[in-house]
Amino acid sequence: MSWTTEAQAAEGGMTERAFTLAGDNGDVPGVYWEPAEGGADALVLLGHGGTTHKRVPYLIAVAQLLAARGVASAAIDGPGHGDRLTIAHTGDNFKAVWDAGGGTEGMLADWRAALDFLHAETGERPTGWWGLSMGTMMGLPVCARDERIRTAVLGLMGTWGPNGAALTEMAPKLTLPLRFLVQWDDEIVPRDACLELFGLIGAKRKTLHANPGLHAAVPQFEVAASADYLASQLRR
Amino acid sequence: MSWTTEAQAAEGGMTERAFTLAGDNGDVPGVYWEPAEGGADALVLLGHGGTTHKRVPYLIAVAQLLAARGVASAAIDGPGHGDRLTIAHTGDNFKAVWDAGGGTEGMLADWRAALDFLHAETGERPTGWWGLSMGTMMGLPVCARDERIRTAVLGLMGTWGPNGAALTEMAPKLTLPLRFLVQWDDEIVPRDACLELFGLIGAKRKTLHANPGLHAAVPQFEVAASADYLASQLRR
Repeated sequence: MSWTTEAQAAEGGMTERAFTLAGDNGDVPGVYWEPAEGGADALVLLGHGGTTHKRVPYLIAVAQLLAARGVASAAIDGPGHGDRLTIAHTGDNFKAVWDAGGGTEGMLADWRAALDFLHAETGERPTGWWGLSMGTMMGLPVCARDERIRTAVLGLMGTWGPNGAALTEMAPKLTLPLRFLVQWDDEIVPRDACLELFGLIGAKRKTLHANPGLHAAVPQFEVAASADYLASQLRR
Repeated sequence: MSWTTEAQAAEGGMTERAFTLAGDNGDVPGVYWEPAEGGADALVLLGHGGTTHKRVPYLIAVAQLLAARGVASAAIDGPGHGDRLTIAHTGDNFKAVWDAGGGTEGMLADWRAALDFLHAETGERPTGWWGLSMGTMMGLPVCARDERIRTAVLGLMGTWGPNGAALTEMAPKLTLPLRFLVQWDDEIVPRDACLELFGLIGAKRKTLHANPGLHAAVPQFEVAASADYLASQLRR
């Protein structure tokens, strides 16, 4: 596992640097962002959504919001996604794509290796998670298993989908402070399944924020507030 | 309707002044708070909870949070509550108390008279509402009817209780930006009834915030954030 580029200027007051991990399911490419002026005192792992990838624009926008708050961030391609595509997305074959990329256990190993690498290379800074939808399919298990992660923004996911059983089982073990986003008119993940998953989460300090709108229509003010939340929690 | 005391110093950097309205159901006593240094550019009406009154400590705490943000506030005793007590609270006679004090229609007239008085006496400043539980039994109808109120914090109430039918009917007519608080383990108002009421509210800009805990255990950070929200909305 190693850097594959030098740090280079990126939009939104950041620098960006690529890395690659040698995973059990093939190479896992990742990207690390930090404020252009350096000095980040915290790190957030960014989990992308289904059918997207580590550099999808909305994830870069979150990285920019975090950088503006002095926080570094990093993303990797999830199982079967981005540069790890082995089966084309057809709209209804998510589970096949996910499983071909290593499934939940492979995903856990990938993220553990990524955080090992990032802490070794950039410092063991207070670390959080931001990820919605498939970013929660990844983030909930990762945050439940890896004690180095101390706060999270999750959401747009429920006791539902290809790893719904794993999420249901792991939710009570998730005890870090977190914010959980729900879209009231979610046309992909049933709202009741999202509410049920929030209810199962073991954390005492968990807050649900729900707004009207479809799955991908999380209001911009809520996204900005989620960056405020992580920056604040990581500096407590 | 008139002031009944001079403004006097109160705890938390405020001044406090009492007033009384001649209502259809007897005198309605109220209290007005503003920052000790004056200069408030907005006003928030505070609706107290069931079996409490206009000067219950948690409401004064909200008045202090608002005053610290340069916002004035005011509360009146609700139907059959506080100094308007005509039937003693027994724990299961809320509807009798509410109806004896004028019920939903009388409550609407009381609050309209209170806002008429406050705007005439202290200026027609941007005006909001803060009220949970019975404070939403009052606030939802008041905010749906009175166009002078432009933003609200509501919650801990559902399609339930003595005016549940009125709330259900009026919710779609409530179109102002609002934040709605839910306690996930509410032992008084069923959670599903709270979620249903939130879903029925007609506002496009509505956000639900839910936290673990019993009815009266709204976290302090959420209360402080609700004051931030109102101050911000009233200055848009």
